[in-house]
Amino acid sequence: MDKKDPTIASLGEFGLIQSHFAPLCSNKKGITVGIGDDGAVLAVQPNQELVVSTDTLVEHIHFSSNDNPYQLAKKSLRVNLSDLAAMGANPNWYLLNIATPPSTQIEWINEFARGLKEDGERYSIVLTGGDTTSSKSGLVITITVMGTVDKGRAILRSGAKPGDKIFLSGTLGDSTLGLTYRLGYLKISNHLDAEFLQNRHLIPEPRVSLGLAILTEKIAHSAIDISDGLIADLKHVCSESNVGAEVDVDKIPLSGAATRLLETGGKEILTQILTGGEDYELLFTADAAMVDKIASIADKVGVGVTEIGVVSSGSEVKVLQNGSQLKLDSGGWTHF
Amino acid sequence: MDKKDPTIASLGEFGLIQSHFAPLCSNKKGITVGIGDDGAVLAVQPNQELVVSTDTLVEHIHFSSNDNPYQLAKKSLRVNLSDLAAMGANPNWYLLNIATPPSTQIEWINEFARGLKEDGERYSIVLTGGDTTSSKSGLVITITVMGTVDKGRAILRSGAKPGDKIFLSGTLGDSTLGLTYRLGYLKISNHLDAEFLQNRHLIPEPRVSLGLAILTEKIAHSAIDISDGLIADLKHVCSESNVGAEVDVDKIPLSGAATRLLETGGKEILTQILTGGEDYELLFTADAAMVDKIASIADKVGVGVTEIGVVSSGSEVKVLQNGSQLKLDSGGWTHF
Repeated sequence: MDKKDPTIASLGEFGLIQSHFAPLCSNKKGITVGIGDDGAVLAVQPNQELVVSTDTLVEHIHFSSNDNPYQLAKKSLRVNLSDLAAMGANPNWYLLNIATPPSTQIEWINEFARGLKEDGERYSIVLTGGDTTSSKSGLVITITVMGTVDKGRAILRSGAKPGDKIFLSGTLGDSTLGLTYRLGYLKISNHLDAEFLQNRHLIPEPRVSLGLAILTEKIAHSAIDISDGLIADLKHVCSESNVGAEVDVDKIPLSGAATRLLETGGKEILTQILTGGEDYELLFTADAAMVDKIASIADKVGVGVTEIGVVSSGSEVKVLQNGSQLKLDSGGWTHF
Repeated sequence: MDKKDPTIASLGEFGLIQSHFAPLCSNKKGITVGIGDDGAVLAVQPNQELVVSTDTLVEHIHFSSNDNPYQLAKKSLRVNLSDLAAMGANPNWYLLNIATPPSTQIEWINEFARGLKEDGERYSIVLTGGDTTSSKSGLVITITVMGTVDKGRAILRSGAKPGDKIFLSGTLGDSTLGLTYRLGYLKISNHLDAEFLQNRHLIPEPRVSLGLAILTEKIAHSAIDISDGLIADLKHVCSESNVGAEVDVDKIPLSGAATRLLETGGKEILTQILTGGEDYELLFTADAAMVDKIASIADKVGVGVTEIGVVSSGSEVKVLQNGSQLKLDSGGWTHF
């Protein structure tokens, strides 16, 4: 973009809302009052509960000023949708708070709004409010999503039971490998692999349909989305459920790209896969008897679901490879 | 605070949430799941609707790094509560997204959390989630409030009718005068006046009880809170309601401090009072027959309410003084 292109300062706050954000609101989804009053007024059906989640992305921390605004908009919304997915909630509404330097170009906001519009339609979630403010330093984006679940049916972190099998959607580790490649810390000779992994980092795929299906079919005892890394998030489930877990490294689903890197990269790559974040895959635990039903659901929603371990009594999260336990030391995950 | 005091970096994200923010969540107010899962799960009663509003405060734009964190926390929550008040909504839940430099001292967060705790109890609103992230530049605070109203009863900006009287709570202009004094653009010789006006800017008083009462008693056709300034906010009501308005400057309620400044400061002070923002007073319109009922409610909730003008047909917002119309030019509000 040319530095002389018009900036959002020329639109003003109300102009920016009118031109770019108000069009993302519609009269669907039980919206009594949308953008333009002191608050939104929203109808939750009597047999349902509200599910709310929020995430903030900060320039220089979560993204760089050179990042593509169209992709950034999608990621900002999707990391939140992933939280709704992990609870089995139906996406309904979202709020956008965006603090932008006045020098931000209109073309940037055009692309940002285009990303939101596309994903709003794709995931059937409607903008109902927010706040646009100026920032003297970097860009800060907060998105708050609101969804609904049938009363008492939200899938929590706290329901895992000893004996449950542990399931994971999609493939693990792509996002962290894509990020370290982008940052220049990891070399990837295969260009297609590099592009695939980068895209997995830049535009994650929230598992909304899978989350809805495992709630509807009463599959899961507990669920979480992998945002902090497999081990950290599995520990969250275990501590909330007062259980332990055993994960079999050899069962963890990997993309072709990650598999190729693991073959040559060894321990550091394995560590990244186990502990890197931002995969936004769903991890859930369910009775072993559910295996066939899960396979059929996975087939229906078009996402792979793999059994990677088992919930145990106690409180330890064990990582096993070829039957023996790995431990994490300063050099990464290694055999005892 | 001493630069060597411990910083929030020593707590980490999860530590910070556990030590400072999780204690602000409680099991009141229909919270099925609070802090600690992928999202909060909240119960809205079947006969009610959800009201949601959100505001972002950015360092160097809305506040300075030297501002008192206890007061800043209160202001961050109160500007949002004011939006709920303007819709007549009952405060229930809030989310806090805070992006802080890692060098932020724990003492700062202690004071910030203390402010939130006090006001959470005062206004009966409970923290149910949020996001704590690092920031490489300034501090950015987003608060999202959720309240409830009986279905179809939210007071909107769009309901003003020609012939309605216009009412204003409290006193106007104190916040903007306090701010310009703080910034060094305005001299105030009376120290008590200076302190009063500064406090009105730093810790606004959201008119939650008044908003609830005018909804319950079916008083108002429309309402808004004064955040952008009297004239701008009255124009919002007029444009949403397709009406005009006439405001009588001589009727506008002023504090003693503002009155004294107006006596000596003239046109510039009047302009500030009419157009300065952040008063967080309620402006509402109601049938003239409601005057006595309004006086009785004002008395009951303990806040002054003053009739300042009338809603007209057409679309113009006129400002009158001694019966003749003022106009705004580059020098401020003056007689034609």
